[in-house]
Amino acid sequence: MSLDSLDKLFLDELRDMYNGEKQITRALPKMAKAAENPELQQAFSKHLKETEGQIQRLEQIFKELGEAVRGKTCKGLQGILEEGKEMMEEEGEDAVLDAALISAAQKVEHYEIASYGCLRAYAQLLGYDSAVRLLEQNLAEEEAADKKLTQLGESGINEAAAAVGGDSEEDQ
Amino acid sequence: MSLDSLDKLFLDELRDMYNGEKQITRALPKMAKAAENPELQQAFSKHLKETEGQIQRLEQIFKELGEAVRGKTCKGLQGILEEGKEMMEEEGEDAVLDAALISAAQKVEHYEIASYGCLRAYAQLLGYDSAVRLLEQNLAEEEAADKKLTQLGESGINEAAAAVGGDSEEDQ
Repeated sequence: MSLDSLDKLFLDELRDMYNGEKQITRALPKMAKAAENPELQQAFSKHLKETEGQIQRLEQIFKELGEAVRGKTCKGLQGILEEGKEMMEEEGEDAVLDAALISAAQKVEHYEIASYGCLRAYAQLLGYDSAVRLLEQNLAEEEAADKKLTQLGESGINEAAAAVGGDSEEDQ
Repeated sequence: MSLDSLDKLFLDELRDMYNGEKQITRALPKMAKAAENPELQQAFSKHLKETEGQIQRLEQIFKELGEAVRGKTCKGLQGILEEGKEMMEEEGEDAVLDAALISAAQKVEHYEIASYGCLRAYAQLLGYDSAVRLLEQNLAEEEAADKKLTQLGESGINEAAAAVGGDSEEDQ
């Protein structure tokens, strides 16, 4: 691939996100299973359904552009999800692991917010009006998912994590 | 490591970011060199200096907590920066490569925004007031860097990228 037009960059980034969203659909069921807090479980399950819809929107964009529906390994999300996987393999207190899951998931959301923000800007300049609308829907869902995770952290999960553990006073 | 307290999660995340910021100091000079637009070059060079200050703030937090100043490979940023490196190795039009650099850099910023947001929340709950202030400064710099990149994209770089290339009309 040669980046000799914004169209090529748009398509490259679209393929990155298409693969990224597919990686996320494989990770979210494991994150929902690992979560102890029922609201957090529910948030992951809800976001899995949203992600499946986001993949369909990306497929629609490929089709409208007459391009092959094809992903390209998203190394950014691969690294972020690998970190999340390592977190889930740690031993520890449920509340702390839930707080760690929120942190891992917010990194995923932020990668997507950055990517969809750029994709939308490119689509606007390229005059791909339908793609702009579809990408805006994906972006809005990622931003809402990120806010929900912040709320869950603030509404008790982080506090529960702060309340457990033997050596948290040592350093104070 | 066992995640049996919020303190442990805080320290783990701090080590992730300490390594991540060091990775970024190695990537930014290459990004500045690869950028064609002088304002983008300047933004990367300015952010390199900020990043060096951020590393010092993280070192101060480790010291105040009586913990070893030590990083832990940040796989998230490793993946994101690897993607950026691949972009820089592509051939193409300067304006398109600049737009691609902005996208790569915004993914870096967003990872950091997510991470510092969580770290600040943990530090607040753990009563680490000095760490809260230091993390807030890092977070504010990352948010400002992200906004600056959006502005640069909107103020001509993306438009310049849309104006080059032979086959951008094909798909319209």
